[in-house]
Amino acid sequence: MVQEPSLFDVELTLPPPSSSQEDAELEAVYAWFLAQKNLTERFGQVFRKSIDEVLDGQRTGRYDLYILEGEGRVEKTEKTYLGTKVEIVARAEFDLGFGDPMDYLIDDINVDAKFTMGTNWAIPKEALGHICLLMQANDREAYFRVGLLRTTMDTLNLGLNGDGKRTVSAAGRSKIRWIIHEGQLPKNLLLALKKESPEKLDAIWRASDDYRGSGNGGQARINELFRQTPEVLVDRTTVVTVAMQHDGLKRARDARDDLRSDGYIIIGHLKPYPQIARDLGLPVPPKGSFVSAKLTAVQDGDGRRSTIINGVKYGLWRVGDQPVEAPLITSASG
Amino acid sequence: MVQEPSLFDVELTLPPPSSSQEDAELEAVYAWFLAQKNLTERFGQVFRKSIDEVLDGQRTGRYDLYILEGEGRVEKTEKTYLGTKVEIVARAEFDLGFGDPMDYLIDDINVDAKFTMGTNWAIPKEALGHICLLMQANDREAYFRVGLLRTTMDTLNLGLNGDGKRTVSAAGRSKIRWIIHEGQLPKNLLLALKKESPEKLDAIWRASDDYRGSGNGGQARINELFRQTPEVLVDRTTVVTVAMQHDGLKRARDARDDLRSDGYIIIGHLKPYPQIARDLGLPVPPKGSFVSAKLTAVQDGDGRRSTIINGVKYGLWRVGDQPVEAPLITSASG
Repeated sequence: MVQEPSLFDVELTLPPPSSSQEDAELEAVYAWFLAQKNLTERFGQVFRKSIDEVLDGQRTGRYDLYILEGEGRVEKTEKTYLGTKVEIVARAEFDLGFGDPMDYLIDDINVDAKFTMGTNWAIPKEALGHICLLMQANDREAYFRVGLLRTTMDTLNLGLNGDGKRTVSAAGRSKIRWIIHEGQLPKNLLLALKKESPEKLDAIWRASDDYRGSGNGGQARINELFRQTPEVLVDRTTVVTVAMQHDGLKRARDARDDLRSDGYIIIGHLKPYPQIARDLGLPVPPKGSFVSAKLTAVQDGDGRRSTIINGVKYGLWRVGDQPVEAPLITSASG
Repeated sequence: MVQEPSLFDVELTLPPPSSSQEDAELEAVYAWFLAQKNLTERFGQVFRKSIDEVLDGQRTGRYDLYILEGEGRVEKTEKTYLGTKVEIVARAEFDLGFGDPMDYLIDDINVDAKFTMGTNWAIPKEALGHICLLMQANDREAYFRVGLLRTTMDTLNLGLNGDGKRTVSAAGRSKIRWIIHEGQLPKNLLLALKKESPEKLDAIWRASDDYRGSGNGGQARINELFRQTPEVLVDRTTVVTVAMQHDGLKRARDARDDLRSDGYIIIGHLKPYPQIARDLGLPVPPKGSFVSAKLTAVQDGDGRRSTIINGVKYGLWRVGDQPVEAPLITSASG
């Protein structure tokens, strides 16, 4: 249907419902999302997975979406695609139907998916008057937001950007019905290290400077990763990004032999590792994740948490403790 | 450095070497690629993986890059991104360095990566005068090509496309130094079925029409996949695309129970399956792939290939054969 421009303009400038409470469709979509189990955790994973797949750390070694130049840069086409990936991953996660003309059909209502890794959303003309699922994720600050807005002209800025799209205005922002206002994005360990301890990150990447070929170099970096980040959960994405090879997880398991003489154990998901983690008060890694721990032998009467391995009592090594060789731990694998 | 337009034009229209044999840099890059082991197979995998990752069949059920409309469509941003993905996967596969200003540094020579899923390549102004690694993959026709061309103005069409890029001219095409002129793209089983036996593909997707929720529906589609495609290798991508769920491979293993009464075995990679496949003259599946086979009991003297399972001799069922319940086969798993 072709509308006269004047009619179109009139329609777009009709006053919206005076509060979002009166937008029955928007409220229905809002209620639909709030009825989903583990909503915040699942949206967090939607963004984490989407970002990690675009970074493709296993092939590229990248962990930082925000690099514009040099070998670690993320191209504009990749950032554009990230929005499409988020749309796909959210659709699959929540089993959302296809709308017409918008992306999703939620409770029989057309909803458009709009993602930004920046601070505002670009709304195309076709979405005007429709409900938008506004999604935002910031990997550097480790948060995400999800909200709903019916994008009428009084919720958008007037000016068009280069793509002929409008951004959400301050007034529009105040009308966003937040589904998740401040979600915690699952941690990007390497990006957090870059911010908090860049010298550790440098040490990890420099560990392979003397190696040619990815096999040995990847092992050297993985070993250094576990030396530099003891007692924290090292997730699968971090492992494959640092290893930059097909079998990154094997490199993590092989680090056990390499680091034993330095006193480190690499806690995995198989027995007896979970019990060791619990004994020492460390995170218990799920499959594909690891926690490294530098051990020392502790005497009876030592107040710290301890675990018994091969008949010897070990605790977490602290400055001043006697260095020991870590015990050889037998598990099925992993 | 800013050049006068006239100087720039002169430079671009300088005569190129009269034949590619005289372009020492291009020949060096050509020789570098030809020295790589398993070159054709590895490039085939580069394109297969790149296409499969963009299709993201596990989440979307998509297997056809060429669909423009409807729920199975592939967006323009995804097709643009496919070129970036190919660049990334090829870089990782061949451990290519970063060039400046071009994408790759191969044997110390700047080389730009250019991929097309169509029939020509779009060369940006920045690549003029440089060597381009021209890559083409056609999933429908199951072929790919890889070649080298120094993109000077006499190898490009004069007109600019919408992005201000030029395509390779007929004269330029004849100058392409082919590294792989007609490679066979690893099979996209579902796309091949769509072309050769669309009714089988319909039956697979329709198998879940009566189901709600992805669990049972995915199992119903996987069961139908194995009924419809006996005696051929069903690869992991096909399985997860048809299952459209996280644990598609488990659906394939569970199909064994569901199809046993219909006489089907689902051959996996663990013992005793490889021997059964060899006995019956079927492909031996690698890990993550499967081959279904409908069996019948064969008598001594029956000329066909046979295998003995649980003391009974079985061969491949053919029209007219007695239907049997398939034997229960015990393997570790998978």
